[in-house]
Amino acid sequence: MSADRDALRDTVREARRAGAALAALDPDGRAGLLGDLAAALEDERTRARILEANAADLARARSGSGAVAPALLDRLVLDGKKLDSVTDGLRRLTALPEVVGRVSLRRELDDGLILTRVACPLGVLAVVFEARPDALPQIAGLAWKSGNALVLKGGREARESHRALTAAAHQVLARHGLDVRALVLLEDRAEVDALLALDDLVDLVVARGGASFVAQVKSQTRIPVMGHAAGVCHVYLHRGADAAMAARIAVDAKCSYPAACNAAETLLWDDGAELAADAAIAALRARGVELRADQATRDRHPDLAAARDGDWDVEHGALVMSVRRVRGMDDALAHIAAHGSRHTEAIVTSDRAAAEHFLAAVDAASVFHNASTRFADGYRFGLGAEVGISTDKLHARGPVGVEGLLTYRWLLRGEGQVSASYGPGGRPFTHQDL
Amino acid sequence: MSADRDALRDTVREARRAGAALAALDPDGRAGLLGDLAAALEDERTRARILEANAADLARARSGSGAVAPALLDRLVLDGKKLDSVTDGLRRLTALPEVVGRVSLRRELDDGLILTRVACPLGVLAVVFEARPDALPQIAGLAWKSGNALVLKGGREARESHRALTAAAHQVLARHGLDVRALVLLEDRAEVDALLALDDLVDLVVARGGASFVAQVKSQTRIPVMGHAAGVCHVYLHRGADAAMAARIAVDAKCSYPAACNAAETLLWDDGAELAADAAIAALRARGVELRADQATRDRHPDLAAARDGDWDVEHGALVMSVRRVRGMDDALAHIAAHGSRHTEAIVTSDRAAAEHFLAAVDAASVFHNASTRFADGYRFGLGAEVGISTDKLHARGPVGVEGLLTYRWLLRGEGQVSASYGPGGRPFTHQDL
Repeated sequence: MSADRDALRDTVREARRAGAALAALDPDGRAGLLGDLAAALEDERTRARILEANAADLARARSGSGAVAPALLDRLVLDGKKLDSVTDGLRRLTALPEVVGRVSLRRELDDGLILTRVACPLGVLAVVFEARPDALPQIAGLAWKSGNALVLKGGREARESHRALTAAAHQVLARHGLDVRALVLLEDRAEVDALLALDDLVDLVVARGGASFVAQVKSQTRIPVMGHAAGVCHVYLHRGADAAMAARIAVDAKCSYPAACNAAETLLWDDGAELAADAAIAALRARGVELRADQATRDRHPDLAAARDGDWDVEHGALVMSVRRVRGMDDALAHIAAHGSRHTEAIVTSDRAAAEHFLAAVDAASVFHNASTRFADGYRFGLGAEVGISTDKLHARGPVGVEGLLTYRWLLRGEGQVSASYGPGGRPFTHQDL
Repeated sequence: MSADRDALRDTVREARRAGAALAALDPDGRAGLLGDLAAALEDERTRARILEANAADLARARSGSGAVAPALLDRLVLDGKKLDSVTDGLRRLTALPEVVGRVSLRRELDDGLILTRVACPLGVLAVVFEARPDALPQIAGLAWKSGNALVLKGGREARESHRALTAAAHQVLARHGLDVRALVLLEDRAEVDALLALDDLVDLVVARGGASFVAQVKSQTRIPVMGHAAGVCHVYLHRGADAAMAARIAVDAKCSYPAACNAAETLLWDDGAELAADAAIAALRARGVELRADQATRDRHPDLAAARDGDWDVEHGALVMSVRRVRGMDDALAHIAAHGSRHTEAIVTSDRAAAEHFLAAVDAASVFHNASTRFADGYRFGLGAEVGISTDKLHARGPVGVEGLLTYRWLLRGEGQVSASYGPGGRPFTHQDL
C-alpha cells in the first residue's frame, strides 16, 4: 500500500513535470493539439475502437447481477451523436482566444517599474468523474487549453471507454512531441484516496457526481475542491407568466435530462398565475412527471399527491417535481433563499420590471428570465465545454470552463528600485495603467 | 455558551441583511461613503479620539507583566503618518472604478437569448487580523468598495484603537443612512470559534497573522479561508547582478520591515556573482543583520555563522537572513522550488534574457526582476489597499484588493427558449460576444 502510494506520488510528480510543456505551448501549437484531438475522434478507426469499448462497457453493465439505474446507462452510452457533440465542443474550444499568458493588467508603478498580471495554469488538475465517457475528451481539451497536467479517475462502469479515449488522447500528445505522462488515467478507487493526500502536488480537485460524493471528497482533502453541492433549482411562474411559455419551460427544465444538476426540482406559482400553473402542471403530467404539491395547489388539482416537508430541499434527479403556490415575489424569493442550492433559478414572466427585480435579488450562480434552467451549462454558455458546475462563490461560479483552470502571477520588472524610497514623505507611485 | 452562539448567529445574520444596502449603493453613493471615511480620519476631533485610544493600548502593552515583542509594538502604534497613509489609500480606493455590477461578459447565445456575467459582493466577510489598527479602516474601505458586510476581530492588544476606529466608521455609515450592523467588531476570542462554525452565513474568512495561525483557522472551518501560509522569499543574485543594486535590494528586502511576510529570508548568489554577494553581505552586516551561511559562502566570509538545515525553510521575521551559493539559474530555481513558499521571489541581474527566464519559470504569486520583494503589497501595486496576501492559487493570488472580495453571477434573459431546441440536429447557438 505504501509502495503504491509512493508510485502514485511519482506518477503525479511526472505529470506535473510533463505538464510544463503544455503550459509552454505557443498559440499555434496549442490550437494544433486541440484540433488534432477533435480530428482523432472523427477518425473512423479510432471511432470504431472507442464505440467498441463502449459496447463492452454497456454489455458488462447490463449483464451485472444488480439492476442498473437508467440514469447511469444514459450517461454511460457513447454514440455517434455524443461524439459529434464532443468534437464540436473541442473545435469551439480550439477557436477561443489563447488564455495562457494573457495579460489582465499592465501598470506603471513608477518610471521603469512595470507591473503585469499574467494568466498561467494551475499546474495539476485531478478530476474524479462519473462513468461518462464523453466527459473525458472534454476535460482533456479544457486541461490542454489551460496548459494543465491532468489526473483522471472515471466511474468504473466506463472503464473500457475511458481506456480507449485516453489511448486516443495519448496518441495525439505523442504526435505533437509531448510527454504522454501529462495525462494520467487512474482505475483503482484506492488510488483516489492516495491522490487526495498529495496536497503538495495537486492544485485543484474537480469532483463530479452527487452532492454527498462532493462533500465526502471535500472532507477528505486539503486540496481545493471544485464541485457542486446539490442542484435544487426552481422555476417560478410570476403572475405575469405566459401560460404556453410556462408549460414549455417547466417541461424542458424537468424532463429534458432529469438526472442533470441544472434540472428543476420545484415549481413555484404565484397568486394570479393560476392559468400558467394549470398549463405547466398539465404539460408535466402529460410527460409522466410525478408531482408533489402543497395544499393550495391541491385545492385546484385535488388528485395530486401531497408534498412532504423534505420535498422542498431534495434533488429528485428523476421525473418527480414539487409544486408550491407562493404569495408574490417576496414569498418566492424567501422560498428560494431558504430551499435553493444557489445553483440556477428561473422566473417566467412578461413583466420586465419584475424579472429585473428577480435577477437582482436571487443569490445563485445562474439566474434566468424566460429561459429553461437547463441552459446553465458550459457548452450552452459558449465556454467550449465545462469541467463542472460550481456552487461555491470563490474562484469560479456556475459552469466552469477554461478560465476556472487558470491562476495568475504578478510580474514586476524594475531597475533596482527599493520600497523604502516610496510612501509618505518619499517618492509617489505613478500607478498608471498602460 | 450556546446562548452566545445564537446571539452571534443573529448578529451575523443582521450583518448580511444590512450588507445588502451596501451592495445596492450606486457609484456616487459608494464614492461618497468611502470619501467620508477618509474625511472622518482627517477630522481633528475624531483623530484625537483615535490617537488617545491608541496611546491607551500602547501604555497597556508596555505596562504588562511580560516583555512585548518589538514587532508587535511596531504594528500596534498608530501615528499621524500611518493615518495619513490610510486616508491616502482610501482616497485612491474611492477613485478606482466602480466594481459592483461590472459586466465582464455579454454574449448572445441565440436571437433574444442574452447572457451576462456580473460582478457582485461575496456577502459577509470575516476578517481576523493582528493588533494593527491601521488595517481596520483599510479593510472597511475594501469591504464597502466591494459591497460586503464585515465581521472583524482584531488582536486584543489594540482593543481601544479598534473600538475608536469602528465608532468612526459606524458614524460614517449612519450619516449615509446605512445600517451600522453591516460592520461588526468582535472582541472575544471565543466568538471567533463560533464565527468559524457559521458556514451558512459567512462567505469568506480572511486570516491575517502567522502561518501557524492561518493553518489553524483553515483546519477549524468549512468556510473558504484566504491567507498566506508563510513568506519564505528569496533574493537571487545572478552572475549578471550589479553589486550596488544587489546591496540596495538585499537591504530593503530584509531590513525595511523584517516582520512583513514579503521580507526576504534567504539570499542566493551565483558562481560568478561574488562581487554582488560581497557587497550585499557587507551592507546587510552594516545594518545589523545576522547572517547564516552555507560552506561556500563561509569560504569567502569565514566569520559568518553556519546555516543549519532548517534555516532554508524558516520565516525569520527578524533581522536574520540565510545565505547560500548556487551554481547558476537551474540550481537557484531548484532551491526556490524546494524551499520557497510561492509568495514573492526576486532576481537581480543586468542580463535581460536570464531575468525573463526566471520570471517565466518561478511558480510564485509575485516574481520580480531588479526590484525589492517588499513591493509585493496591495497599496504599492495600486490596488488601493489590501485585505491580505494570498499564497493560494485559487480565486485570488498575491496582494488581494477589492477584486478578491467579489464573485459573479450569470444572468440569462430570454423569450421562452428551452434547451431541447438546441444541440446536434437542432438550432445552433450563435455565441456572439456583444
